[in-house]
Amino acid sequence: MGRVTERRRIVRIRDGQVSRRPDTLVAEEPLEIRLNGKPLAITMRTPGDDFALAAGFLVSEGVLGRADELQSIVYCAGATADGTNTYNVVDVRLAPGVPVPDITLERNVYTTSSCGLCGKASLDAVRTATRFPDLADDPVQITPALLAELPERLRAGQRVFDTTGGLHAAALFDADGTLLDVREDVGRHNAVDKIVGRALQDGRLPLRSTVLMVSGRASFELVQKAVMAGIPVLAAVSAPSSLAVDLAAESGLTLVGFLRGTSMNVYAGDERVLVGDAVPRQG
Amino acid sequence: MGRVTERRRIVRIRDGQVSRRPDTLVAEEPLEIRLNGKPLAITMRTPGDDFALAAGFLVSEGVLGRADELQSIVYCAGATADGTNTYNVVDVRLAPGVPVPDITLERNVYTTSSCGLCGKASLDAVRTATRFPDLADDPVQITPALLAELPERLRAGQRVFDTTGGLHAAALFDADGTLLDVREDVGRHNAVDKIVGRALQDGRLPLRSTVLMVSGRASFELVQKAVMAGIPVLAAVSAPSSLAVDLAAESGLTLVGFLRGTSMNVYAGDERVLVGDAVPRQG
Repeated sequence: MGRVTERRRIVRIRDGQVSRRPDTLVAEEPLEIRLNGKPLAITMRTPGDDFALAAGFLVSEGVLGRADELQSIVYCAGATADGTNTYNVVDVRLAPGVPVPDITLERNVYTTSSCGLCGKASLDAVRTATRFPDLADDPVQITPALLAELPERLRAGQRVFDTTGGLHAAALFDADGTLLDVREDVGRHNAVDKIVGRALQDGRLPLRSTVLMVSGRASFELVQKAVMAGIPVLAAVSAPSSLAVDLAAESGLTLVGFLRGTSMNVYAGDERVLVGDAVPRQG
Repeated sequence: MGRVTERRRIVRIRDGQVSRRPDTLVAEEPLEIRLNGKPLAITMRTPGDDFALAAGFLVSEGVLGRADELQSIVYCAGATADGTNTYNVVDVRLAPGVPVPDITLERNVYTTSSCGLCGKASLDAVRTATRFPDLADDPVQITPALLAELPERLRAGQRVFDTTGGLHAAALFDADGTLLDVREDVGRHNAVDKIVGRALQDGRLPLRSTVLMVSGRASFELVQKAVMAGIPVLAAVSAPSSLAVDLAAESGLTLVGFLRGTSMNVYAGDERVLVGDAVPRQG
């Protein structure tokens, strides 16, 4: 398996001062995910937790929902021309009887990048594909004060960021704000897949009454991944997109953005955020 | 065509003060790119500049390198079940005689996400695929003082970020620091594709002696896009990955990261950065 960080010599310029020195960089390598031996997708990722990444990717695609649907994940030897194991190709085997998705070209194009031809179709596709459609019924509630503490707890859990400054992070918390898992990756979606995949492997899906915190923005894809894993609250440091907000609202996901200090915006599912009398409870 | 921003009602929490108010969000919609009528890829993007995005994507994939290789780009009507034009599907037609890539499933998986089974293979693949292999010979040189001004010039050219805080941006400058183009998108790679695609349409490829500035990190994919478009200098606000640095070094691209104020790191191609006597010129 590749290393999480690598060293390179750089030229450092600071206010006119120039020095040559070694620097620590976050590692990035492609990972090919095969399903029952057939290529399904390639993602550029930080090596490590590759089996969890593959499992989580398949949760996001609606292929996996329970630990017993997963038979095995292995690194493929001989995937390159010279027959070496690059540790950049994994093969996921589904348990007997688990439906294998139809991996034609067109299905592949759709499923690995999005879920439909327009934004509305994408929302419909996620709603029909989720294995945990009762997300809106999750009764968890949290206070703004607790939410405000999560970015710092996420940062405290990050190990590689401090040395490279180049990683996105995702962290899973319980309703009391206890850190359950934290993963880092060059790709935000990969960090979330690693968390979700680990939870699947441990038999913890759906991730009821948890809060997923991500270091960057909240895209449609990240909301989709939270919905597919049964996570009721997604909080992001930066802005969500319109389609992310629409999917959250349709799915019963609480979406918090611009979570900085004691400030935040609640874009959907605000009935789970206990703000007192100022905002009437809904639903 | 969709709008670049959309309005949604949110709950805003600032230091215990709670208000309900409308907020402006960046729009995100899927775009399916078809090549000669066949689905090639879907990307989640901010609507606008869709033809440039599709053209730039095909430059990055090595399919297009000159304006006369592109016959037409149109929105597809009737791509959804009810036959409406969602303006989320474009079809690119290549000029007669331009080789159409073999879009089988496996090729598609490889070309749209990466270029090989391991990092080394990815570097080789880009080197053999680029239409402008003489990148290392580009004689452009720039000063740290000029580089230090680019982030502010990029920000000044961004129109949507200020209202949403949710967009990545890419800007193209000439060697004097004059802004040639700036594009915004929910995806960093899309913003770069829009710049490169517009340049292809205008007959300006390869983009010799230019500087591409991106608002976030420098991933392998972004370095790949710069190399494929013949851009000799890539500057990023944040960190590059190890594979991005390796590809830049192999391709003759100058890669600058952590460009903040008068501080920056030069990860590859430092012979183009005029730092005076402190760093001996190389090459």
